[in-house]
Amino acid sequence: MDWAGAERRSLAMLGVTPGWQRLCALGAVDDETAGAVLDAAGRLAAEMLAPVGEASDREGARVEGGHVVLPEGFGGAWAAMAEGGWIGLDLPEEVGGAGLPVALQAAAESLFDAAAPAFGMAPGAARSAGHLLAAHGGEALAEWVPALISGERAATICISEPGAGSDVGRIATKAVRDGDGWRVTGQKIWISFGDHDLAPVIGHCLLARTSEAPGTRGLSLFLVPARRGEAGVSLLRIEEKMGLHGSPTCALAFDGAEAQLIGEEGRGLAQLFAMIELMRLQTGVQGLGLAMAAADIAEAYAEERRQGGDPAAPPVPIAGHPDVARQLRELRARTELLRAAVFELAVQIDLAQRAPEAAEREEAAALAAFLMPLVKTFGAETGFDVPHRAIQVLGGAGYTRDWPLERMLRDARVLAIYEGTSGMQAIDFTERRLVRDRRGLDVFVAQAGAEAFAGLAGEVAAAPEAARLAAADAVMRAGWAAVTGWLAERIAAVDPASAETLRRALPQRFALHAAEARAALDAGPVID
Amino acid sequence: MDWAGAERRSLAMLGVTPGWQRLCALGAVDDETAGAVLDAAGRLAAEMLAPVGEASDREGARVEGGHVVLPEGFGGAWAAMAEGGWIGLDLPEEVGGAGLPVALQAAAESLFDAAAPAFGMAPGAARSAGHLLAAHGGEALAEWVPALISGERAATICISEPGAGSDVGRIATKAVRDGDGWRVTGQKIWISFGDHDLAPVIGHCLLARTSEAPGTRGLSLFLVPARRGEAGVSLLRIEEKMGLHGSPTCALAFDGAEAQLIGEEGRGLAQLFAMIELMRLQTGVQGLGLAMAAADIAEAYAEERRQGGDPAAPPVPIAGHPDVARQLRELRARTELLRAAVFELAVQIDLAQRAPEAAEREEAAALAAFLMPLVKTFGAETGFDVPHRAIQVLGGAGYTRDWPLERMLRDARVLAIYEGTSGMQAIDFTERRLVRDRRGLDVFVAQAGAEAFAGLAGEVAAAPEAARLAAADAVMRAGWAAVTGWLAERIAAVDPASAETLRRALPQRFALHAAEARAALDAGPVID
Repeated sequence: MDWAGAERRSLAMLGVTPGWQRLCALGAVDDETAGAVLDAAGRLAAEMLAPVGEASDREGARVEGGHVVLPEGFGGAWAAMAEGGWIGLDLPEEVGGAGLPVALQAAAESLFDAAAPAFGMAPGAARSAGHLLAAHGGEALAEWVPALISGERAATICISEPGAGSDVGRIATKAVRDGDGWRVTGQKIWISFGDHDLAPVIGHCLLARTSEAPGTRGLSLFLVPARRGEAGVSLLRIEEKMGLHGSPTCALAFDGAEAQLIGEEGRGLAQLFAMIELMRLQTGVQGLGLAMAAADIAEAYAEERRQGGDPAAPPVPIAGHPDVARQLRELRARTELLRAAVFELAVQIDLAQRAPEAAEREEAAALAAFLMPLVKTFGAETGFDVPHRAIQVLGGAGYTRDWPLERMLRDARVLAIYEGTSGMQAIDFTERRLVRDRRGLDVFVAQAGAEAFAGLAGEVAAAPEAARLAAADAVMRAGWAAVTGWLAERIAAVDPASAETLRRALPQRFALHAAEARAALDAGPVID
Repeated sequence: MDWAGAERRSLAMLGVTPGWQRLCALGAVDDETAGAVLDAAGRLAAEMLAPVGEASDREGARVEGGHVVLPEGFGGAWAAMAEGGWIGLDLPEEVGGAGLPVALQAAAESLFDAAAPAFGMAPGAARSAGHLLAAHGGEALAEWVPALISGERAATICISEPGAGSDVGRIATKAVRDGDGWRVTGQKIWISFGDHDLAPVIGHCLLARTSEAPGTRGLSLFLVPARRGEAGVSLLRIEEKMGLHGSPTCALAFDGAEAQLIGEEGRGLAQLFAMIELMRLQTGVQGLGLAMAAADIAEAYAEERRQGGDPAAPPVPIAGHPDVARQLRELRARTELLRAAVFELAVQIDLAQRAPEAAEREEAAALAAFLMPLVKTFGAETGFDVPHRAIQVLGGAGYTRDWPLERMLRDARVLAIYEGTSGMQAIDFTERRLVRDRRGLDVFVAQAGAEAFAGLAGEVAAAPEAARLAAADAVMRAGWAAVTGWLAERIAAVDPASAETLRRALPQRFALHAAEARAALDAGPVID
């Protein structure tokens, strides 16, 4: 992994991401600070996290005596993340954070995820909870945010239950009033880092039912603090997974556990979305980290591995073989596009918070909402696809554990599932961003000038209900293609090699994505 | 896994595969025999192999005291395969086989690979070696074929070396004459089941250099018998792989090992191709087995798992959700297309051997050579893609080891690498089938009437050298699309449900593949 190269590419890309200069002008950041932050992040990733990433997969998290035991090195990495101020990098200064942009946090985190994606889920959840509690926790929970930033406390997000996955309206975990507080009873599953000893207290940000109002209206959001050895929260099991072995995916039982209401009763899901949106961006960042690392490995291998050429002469580096060169260009093109897309979304999230005028904030928020399902899905696909293609460059070697690519592919497979499956993102994009609220689309079309896409989106909006879901997947691809077209020129300004790669590898792909969307629409109600 | 359903689909598909009725008319097989064979194969797969498949991944092969120890149950499964006559199913009766068609063997083997693909590599190599030795072994090696069929001996194929993977011309292992025989010295890697105790003797079918003639002209083919405890062949290590854990992938050292020449000196690679071609078909069959199993699991899960629907009513099976229904149709369509394609190729291989007239044999052989790289690649892609998509249907559950889908995805990742990477298949298809020898293309176009594809192929043949490799990948897809169009109607005759699936899911995809190929050609020399 070429850490210096990754830092350089990210710094250059930030500089040309629309809105970044605006953030600089607003005093949120400057290029020198960004460079120093990425340099420090790269050092942490290379020196501290990369060894942890390797141990993480081999050892995995396990359960002993009813508690999770994490792989070697997680404790040291957690301390280093906290001491370096990384958990609070983009949290407000008034609650103990560094107050830097989400975009810079994303750039730093992609380096961490290139090294140790399973470990990264722990500080990632603490940071997201910090944002949630800074926004909705109020006075009663004010002590939590600095404690999360300093690593003295950890956090999780608890939504799913055995009978309620994507269908959150069926959540059955109940919260009942108990004096000034609440008590929560029920079972939650798929809880990343639901138990561990990185910190003595874990705050579970948990959705529970507080009324019999159907669907999501009866749901409220709670903070359930858990300490090992205390009653109320117990570990049922951890999942045996394909990858992310170092990240314990817990099933937890809450048995009258003490809880504090976060924000307003009955507004649980809406409030939690502040955290969910950040975790969706984080999924894109994880995809970026995995893609960056895999592309680097494939490029370095192809320069070193010698095969073929004139039989009478020594073999040549396989990077010079036309088909390998083509594969390397694809890897790099997809990785750089994802970098551009992730930073784009992150900067819009920053502007939606920091712009002085309401109109500018509203426009940035609408564009961010529009881009979110595209970037989450593209990040999930690219994070899987680039390691997959990198394995092919290495051939048989790539299929062995001598190289981390097979681990990356296993780690990446979940990205299209958690934080809302690709199918959920497609529904979000089609139903909410193209039909119900077209503000983000309007902003996007105005900024991107993607006329073909605007036409398609209109057709989807006008399509009968039955055809709409069928078209969603295809339109997401077309949407992504339009975003890509918008990004490609920018990359040219930063990184001539990558731009050349994009110019060669991608144009016909854009046309095909649009053709696919068109064909799906023309085919009429495929789904019924 | 719905074993009865898989048998029924395969039997029906064989019946409508072009050439199958011709094979019946030639007395090679009849539908009753085929039904009985598939029924027995399904029982073996369900009762004996499925439990072995599970143990295979968990335990994996390991090395103890310099030798491979196989997972629990492999010995019993090997004995059952041999006793049931499965290793020799399509080997000639005069050497102890059952003399049935390759196509029926493929149909049976896909059931075995649905259950235990890692184990299946052992009987698969014995069978392929049986074909090689029946064709080129001569009198001196005549005892080998019945011994392979009865399971008393096993076999491997030894080609790759540390410095010679796809680039076989750089093979450095040397064979020198020693009295009437030969002795072989060198190192071979990526040897599936290179060491085990399923049989007391393993015959290594090995390419070695017998002259300094450059490239592949100096290579000859040998049979190197190895017995545990005897000098000459030793195990260096087994690879730690992403999947196929039960299949020991060995690095072997040959140190003056006794060897017998197979066939003619200097014709090693050409002769070995009889075995390699069967192992490429076998890769397509493995892909089919994995796809069949994964599609079945996803369909069954989606009928049972309940989520969503009217919040006031009980949740509904997710198979009824439009986006899940779309995913299931994709799974099934891809699986059935692969089944049709694998059987198509296998029947042509049969006709190339069995047709009474030379002209008919020649035509079948040309078509088989044309289809081989397409089916190998499509099998590798589909065998990976269907488990990948099936995981998405199961969501978080699919990412856990509670279901075999993640194991299937890991097992499948190597299909695009071994037996010639997809890149090698693309070169084979473009250089050999579209440019150097267009006979298979002519047969295909005459039979399939795929005019669009014929035009494309002509353009590739006429394209400058620099553009040809760039177009190969796209043209393979277009070739596949054309084959698919040809197959789709046939499926309608067999399996109305699958045909409906194909009708809905695939037409626009064909158009896109053709468009992609066209775009690649229009883009000119992308690779330089």
